[in-house]
Amino acid sequence: MVTTSDFSILKRINSPDDLKTLSIEELKQLSGELRNFIIDVVSENSGHLGSSLGVIELTVALHFAYNAPYDQIVWDVGHQAYGHKILTGRRDVFHTNRKYKGIGGFPRRDESPYDAFVGGHASVAISAALGMAVAAQHNKEDDKRVVAIIGDGSMSGGLAFEGLNNAGIQNADLLVIVNDNNIAIDANVGALKEYLIDITSSSAYNKLKKDVWDFMGVMRLRNPRRFITRIQYAIKSFLFKKSNLFESLGFRYFGPIDGHDMKRLVKILQDLRKIKGPKVLHVVTTKGKGYKHAEIDQTAFHAPGKFNKSTGEIYTTQTNHPVAPKYQEVFGRTLLELAEKNDKIVGITPAMLAGSSMNIMNRKMPERIFDVGIAEAHAVTFSAGLASQGLIPFCNIYSSFMQRAFDQVIHDVAIQNLQVVFCLDRAGLVGNDGPTHHGAYDLAFMRCVPNLTIAAPMNEVELRDLMFTAQLPNKGPFVIRYPKGQGVMVEWRKPMKEIVIGKGEIIKEGSDLAIITLGHAGNFAVNAVKKIADQNLAGIYNMRFLKPIDADLLHHIMNKYKNIITLEDGTVKGGLGSAVVEFAQEHGYRVNIKIMGIPDRFVEQGSQEELYAECGFDEQCICKVVDSFVKHKVLQIH
Amino acid sequence: MVTTSDFSILKRINSPDDLKTLSIEELKQLSGELRNFIIDVVSENSGHLGSSLGVIELTVALHFAYNAPYDQIVWDVGHQAYGHKILTGRRDVFHTNRKYKGIGGFPRRDESPYDAFVGGHASVAISAALGMAVAAQHNKEDDKRVVAIIGDGSMSGGLAFEGLNNAGIQNADLLVIVNDNNIAIDANVGALKEYLIDITSSSAYNKLKKDVWDFMGVMRLRNPRRFITRIQYAIKSFLFKKSNLFESLGFRYFGPIDGHDMKRLVKILQDLRKIKGPKVLHVVTTKGKGYKHAEIDQTAFHAPGKFNKSTGEIYTTQTNHPVAPKYQEVFGRTLLELAEKNDKIVGITPAMLAGSSMNIMNRKMPERIFDVGIAEAHAVTFSAGLASQGLIPFCNIYSSFMQRAFDQVIHDVAIQNLQVVFCLDRAGLVGNDGPTHHGAYDLAFMRCVPNLTIAAPMNEVELRDLMFTAQLPNKGPFVIRYPKGQGVMVEWRKPMKEIVIGKGEIIKEGSDLAIITLGHAGNFAVNAVKKIADQNLAGIYNMRFLKPIDADLLHHIMNKYKNIITLEDGTVKGGLGSAVVEFAQEHGYRVNIKIMGIPDRFVEQGSQEELYAECGFDEQCICKVVDSFVKHKVLQIH
Repeated sequence: MVTTSDFSILKRINSPDDLKTLSIEELKQLSGELRNFIIDVVSENSGHLGSSLGVIELTVALHFAYNAPYDQIVWDVGHQAYGHKILTGRRDVFHTNRKYKGIGGFPRRDESPYDAFVGGHASVAISAALGMAVAAQHNKEDDKRVVAIIGDGSMSGGLAFEGLNNAGIQNADLLVIVNDNNIAIDANVGALKEYLIDITSSSAYNKLKKDVWDFMGVMRLRNPRRFITRIQYAIKSFLFKKSNLFESLGFRYFGPIDGHDMKRLVKILQDLRKIKGPKVLHVVTTKGKGYKHAEIDQTAFHAPGKFNKSTGEIYTTQTNHPVAPKYQEVFGRTLLELAEKNDKIVGITPAMLAGSSMNIMNRKMPERIFDVGIAEAHAVTFSAGLASQGLIPFCNIYSSFMQRAFDQVIHDVAIQNLQVVFCLDRAGLVGNDGPTHHGAYDLAFMRCVPNLTIAAPMNEVELRDLMFTAQLPNKGPFVIRYPKGQGVMVEWRKPMKEIVIGKGEIIKEGSDLAIITLGHAGNFAVNAVKKIADQNLAGIYNMRFLKPIDADLLHHIMNKYKNIITLEDGTVKGGLGSAVVEFAQEHGYRVNIKIMGIPDRFVEQGSQEELYAECGFDEQCICKVVDSFVKHKVLQIH
Repeated sequence: MVTTSDFSILKRINSPDDLKTLSIEELKQLSGELRNFIIDVVSENSGHLGSSLGVIELTVALHFAYNAPYDQIVWDVGHQAYGHKILTGRRDVFHTNRKYKGIGGFPRRDESPYDAFVGGHASVAISAALGMAVAAQHNKEDDKRVVAIIGDGSMSGGLAFEGLNNAGIQNADLLVIVNDNNIAIDANVGALKEYLIDITSSSAYNKLKKDVWDFMGVMRLRNPRRFITRIQYAIKSFLFKKSNLFESLGFRYFGPIDGHDMKRLVKILQDLRKIKGPKVLHVVTTKGKGYKHAEIDQTAFHAPGKFNKSTGEIYTTQTNHPVAPKYQEVFGRTLLELAEKNDKIVGITPAMLAGSSMNIMNRKMPERIFDVGIAEAHAVTFSAGLASQGLIPFCNIYSSFMQRAFDQVIHDVAIQNLQVVFCLDRAGLVGNDGPTHHGAYDLAFMRCVPNLTIAAPMNEVELRDLMFTAQLPNKGPFVIRYPKGQGVMVEWRKPMKEIVIGKGEIIKEGSDLAIITLGHAGNFAVNAVKKIADQNLAGIYNMRFLKPIDADLLHHIMNKYKNIITLEDGTVKGGLGSAVVEFAQEHGYRVNIKIMGIPDRFVEQGSQEELYAECGFDEQCICKVVDSFVKHKVLQIH
């Protein structure tokens, strides 16, 4: 356990109020302590690291210059918000971060009044903050300020643009801080900008309502030659960098500014707090700042797991026996294998090259992999465009992020019946990322869309076979969903074969009861049945396809059994369970069906195992349900 | 019926090949004929008018300069594509436009090889076209060109930005034509731009790889003073207009250009066809161009219905007796009425101020109405931001467009349990707009989301009562969906009352069979039962709420009847029918349930009545199903 004994200032900070009396030097010391505290805790407990380290000074300066929770501070993609959480009363529970029943890894309104808005998905903050700023106008809270902090990566999401575009015309008091840890600055242009920023952000100039271009007009009169030189820089910097994009959308642009310079940050934030209207502050930070290992290998230390804070060694699990690979790895290796044989295959990912393992194919054939940035809707429509020309795009999107491209699936792919293969990674309960990230709804929201084939593999070999099948000619739009993490097969590198679309598999027959499963959760059923005294009791049926559903297999099951369990790692409203119940009703089967899956409420964070248990469909729960079925062989029928 | 007898050139154009030999003068004449042809047909058959009239010259020039269908021409929001349809072999069937079994009002890949991509929803074209351009590279079709035509209104959609942002780095041969019928041009700035565009779009200059800024550099050396004047214009125009946005995203920008100047259009398109890389051509057009009535009243002539082409009189239906209002009007008037009493209420619409009737409140309280442009995702997240500060946003989005904001409903509203009132207009079958616009899926994709209340009124009074209920304190996120068009109550201006959430209504009891309905379709059941000889046969139950569903009422029904019909104007996969079947299964009721609703396939265009019949749930179909139930009182149960 980390204590706060070495943190002479941090231990006194129980809310941002405790910051307000500190000097700049003390704020700097606090930043160092905060950084060390995060490294201490994350190295022992795992979690996100680099993003939060990069915004330490910004976090401290924001809470110094602004008055949260009255002022609203909205963190886009909240894994940069660890410092914020620690400074706002959660220092002593920070070691429970992302754990079952602990504090969340993202800002949560129900966790703290300082968490102004949920921050699980990217590109949200500007729109939400604009709503808050407009509400403050409506509520006549003229002194309330709203700040959105958004990474340069999140800026590629269309929602961020929609928010900027709308904010520019609303003239609300909104500060958007672009946390830019990516772009190098040209020294000359930077010099001009530093100059510009000093004058444009000071209250004195703004009271005169002189903006930078008025100022330039004055300069022109005094020294045309110098003006021309400067204007050349200005043109290059403003026209060909992001900055002018903000200006063109009606924002006043300030920056770029060094995001680790506490004095400047405090000064400019204090100034900006007094300037009306929509403003962008462009802050340049170093991801992993202050921890050399994280600065050097920014990708590895984005979310490193546990590590040795002295040596920077990231701990890995060592085993002496072969283990089943992650579904992600199987996807990545299989995609490359298929692409080597079928030159129509291309890969599309919205900023999840490594997370999806599409980087495996990218190393061999980068010209056939398209990382489109955080832009799920575009990923899908772009894929539709590719498919319209005869290519076969494998568009890999995390299940909960596919919610962002639902219309594109319907309008651009399904209506046109284009052969796009959607690989929904992180389907089902994802674990520590919690409610914003669980892939709980995909089966339900995809099932209602005509023309889609929807499948979920029970193991690695089935994932490979489904991927193989989906790229064969004329298969139409094809959804394959699979969970985060390990599969079940050590020997998974088997030759691929076609699976007949809409055909399930009998894993075992039983005497009294059928368990109908979809996807990886089928393994829970297999393991559960092994624990039952009479293993012949329960038949297990792997449907493989939610749509089209295997009518022959369901007729077989419903003719044979009166008692049926359906099992899926997805919501109980509208997925496999609903499909099976509808089938029984349509064909007049009088059967008892128990639907097991994710309940109709938001499920919190925890390990996947903890959550399967909480949601009532881990092995133990399945055993219990089987048991209760067997004890009351035919349930009461009205 | 219109004939082509007055259309001496048009009648010879059966494909774009027939255009290629025409002179500029003949192309101009063709444009006039095309315009007259569209006015002739639309005045008699109704449809969209202004958008297509505005792009006549652009359409002709495009088909002259490009080689469709080898080149891919993608129309964003295809109601601007009438000219394109007529020039590409559909002149003689154009009078069937938007009619049942006729040609579609938007481009459709299954209708013509010239329709490169579906064009029902906005902001899609750039992403789709980029996919095509990248596919052309992959397929080594170096001579293939891709053009996306997108209105300035559609540019506000985040997907358009995602597409631009991604295209800028991919260096694909893509031309985006921004059809701008909105922005006036400053004469001075325009003069500079005309000058710039001439030099930048000519092949000679581009071969030298001089872009506009290099050119300016040359000018500076010759005449600094003149340079300063020009650069001032350039700064104002480029920094504060849209153009620089495109440049900042990696596009070469050309324009603005007069979109009715055939000679210039042909010249620049021929030049642009030869220039590699991502390019934007900014074309300024007049909506309704060439038909004075449409130029003067652009809103009325966007989709005027039938009209007298000589006088410009738009025909309206005259009745001597009072008729029920449209649901839209009731929504608009009720929103104002509620807002007058509850100052927390604000209205949000993504560019559907008139379509949703939110303009009624806008006339009285414009400061409380937010038209955010075509940006559904932002509309929802912005609403969430407003709600987080205690306001009660009524966020009105057409059902099929709500597909574009699904993640925002889950992540930003439902997870945080914020009180946003979603009013889903155009829910169910919408009629002539066809498959892209039917609101067929909302009940299914909303039902799987925790925390939502989901309701559908059966008539105007219920719509008002639901709106009243939704704005009472602490009601959480609330969905109210209702169809396009007329309701059933002439006397709808009744005092509003609270409806208990999750409570349905017994319309009538019956002896043999229950019809469980949701929303407006309940009226079909009422009317159908009136036609049955024994009107006591069928009970009718208006559920009002899909979620939470009225368990007491369902117990009552299932205890009383063995035969049940569910009726909804929504997909049969995952909506009311599924909920009722799940309920019966969960509680062990042995009942026969027939689910009536929109089948699991894409439904084409037609009048709403034609489509209700096709989908099997109009009055006649209900009578038939009731009849078959009665004849076989208890269906076979296995």
